Amino acid sequence: MTQNQQILLASRPQGEPSAANFRLVEVPVPALADGQVLVRHHYLSLDPYMRGRMNEGKSYAQPQPLDQVMIGGTVGEVVESRHPGFAAGDKVVGMGGWQLYSVVDAGQPGLLRKVDTTHVPLSAYLGAVGMPGVTAWVGLIKIIEPKAGETVVVSAASGAVGSAVGQLAKARGCRVVGFAGGKDKCAYAVDELGFDACIDYKAHPDLKSLSAALKEAAPDGVDGYFENVGGMILDAVMLRMNAFGRIAFCGMISGYNGEPIPMAHPQLILTQRLKLQGFIVSEHMEHWPEALKELGTLVASGKLKYRETVAQGLASAPEAFIGLLKGRNFGKQLVKLI
Amino acid sequence: MTQNQQILLASRPQGEPSAANFRLVEVPVPALADGQVLVRHHYLSLDPYMRGRMNEGKSYAQPQPLDQVMIGGTVGEVVESRHPGFAAGDKVVGMGGWQLYSVVDAGQPGLLRKVDTTHVPLSAYLGAVGMPGVTAWVGLIKIIEPKAGETVVVSAASGAVGSAVGQLAKARGCRVVGFAGGKDKCAYAVDELGFDACIDYKAHPDLKSLSAALKEAAPDGVDGYFENVGGMILDAVMLRMNAFGRIAFCGMISGYNGEPIPMAHPQLILTQRLKLQGFIVSEHMEHWPEALKELGTLVASGKLKYRETVAQGLASAPEAFIGLLKGRNFGKQLVKLI
Repeated sequence: MTQNQQILLASRPQGEPSAANFRLVEVPVPALADGQVLVRHHYLSLDPYMRGRMNEGKSYAQPQPLDQVMIGGTVGEVVESRHPGFAAGDKVVGMGGWQLYSVVDAGQPGLLRKVDTTHVPLSAYLGAVGMPGVTAWVGLIKIIEPKAGETVVVSAASGAVGSAVGQLAKARGCRVVGFAGGKDKCAYAVDELGFDACIDYKAHPDLKSLSAALKEAAPDGVDGYFENVGGMILDAVMLRMNAFGRIAFCGMISGYNGEPIPMAHPQLILTQRLKLQGFIVSEHMEHWPEALKELGTLVASGKLKYRETVAQGLASAPEAFIGLLKGRNFGKQLVKLI
Repeated sequence: MTQNQQILLASRPQGEPSAANFRLVEVPVPALADGQVLVRHHYLSLDPYMRGRMNEGKSYAQPQPLDQVMIGGTVGEVVESRHPGFAAGDKVVGMGGWQLYSVVDAGQPGLLRKVDTTHVPLSAYLGAVGMPGVTAWVGLIKIIEPKAGETVVVSAASGAVGSAVGQLAKARGCRVVGFAGGKDKCAYAVDELGFDACIDYKAHPDLKSLSAALKEAAPDGVDGYFENVGGMILDAVMLRMNAFGRIAFCGMISGYNGEPIPMAHPQLILTQRLKLQGFIVSEHMEHWPEALKELGTLVASGKLKYRETVAQGLASAPEAFIGLLKGRNFGKQLVKLI
């Protein structure tokens, strides 16, 4: 009988998560019922939203239950199928969780999707051509609605979402400015991804210094801001917003461990007539087909670039996730499971 | 030769304005040129936005120039006309400023508008059927977009804008909760204007107490919030916002004198997928005809109620304005000039 390995949420973190909040267990893979499919995961996706799910309180969605497999996106291969729509060997993307195998009720719409790896690598379906890419697309295209010649700013610029935001905005004729942590990430955003400028926030410990850097990078002000972090970067960007600017709130990672992150100058919403809007990509399913089509085409043709940080083996997932929250990853954080 | 009295901005206030920031002068009314109209003002409107104009820095619009007549909405009567569209005796609304008379280039579109006082009192064109009423209409109908059964909250509930917001929302089948300063204003909002509940923020000195009162008044959470004040009330409302709630930023009077008014929990924009949008009614001229039509009909039929606080004489305008910023007025603050 095939053995499965799973990582469960053992306890809820107070502040920063630690390895002790997780527990690895080994259980047998159950036999399939009619309509089910067994998937062997090749990659697990690690994403900042998972930190929110680990809290008890109200966040995006239901909290992650204790003593159950951590949720997470996965890509892999069907190894056994009792559903007519899937066959052994099919490459699939789904929400398999932090484990080596998942048993999926393949008839339920949206749980499992076959993908074509001829021109797009399997792992990209967890990144640029997956949830992070669509997140970038929806926030940028549907909330920020950038026009050619406008200035778009994105934080966590070298990450899975931020790198796609910047490249999609460049393709629409915008000036693009990123925030990232460290010289290497900033150099990558400018030299590889084509950003017009990138600010290393670690080199600017206070608002004054950060604001001066942004003023230099965005001399005509900011029309659209894609928010992934919150805190001081949000304050600095708001002070540079042009009239009728738009801010898409996608993430506020600086507050995910419970730190207070007040917004210093909300009156700018009024004086600059801003629109601020929060969104969760899973609530905009109507845009996924159009977004995935553009993202897939861009990745296949090499026009949308991305970078991956790959941890090896399921047991490395907790440390890799903790590192993600600290910005230790470079691009999309994955765990290779095979 | 007719003498005019004018109030000029003599100096820019640091923090709260005082009478010393204004200067009353007497000057002769000039002779009319072709196309001009002389208006004798009956009422001057005092509005919170004027405080922003008194600062040097960037706000909604150009700052009020020093040593010039303070801007302001006025209603009055044409006493002399050299424009074919206006005749002596016409009742008009315009932006005549803090003075007894104004000379208007009546051919310039939007500067002067004739009004019908058969069913609507002249002063109402500065309130419920004027800029404050349209402000309420645009923020509520075009930004909050209330649906029947939803809960709408408005601050400064007994004021010129807030009282219209609440009554328009009630007419659309919403549960309406106000914030106002003092028992009398709250009783008026509930008993006269038909609000479902009104919270006296002066009786709740801290966020915990204010939040508890809001929870009781809005048991199903808040779907739309019309923001006139900012500060602790905004924090309390945000903590009660339902998913997909909308906040229209119309004013933040608690910060008009330069006080810091940080927003405590901007991460709620994300977790509750809120939309926050600032607006200025003069930038939405396309909605004025529809709004004025509804507001005029409602006032004429007695279905839209309002209250006025009337100061007597131009010289009383500075003190009345200072009182407005402190919430000493009850309903629309006017200055009677005749």
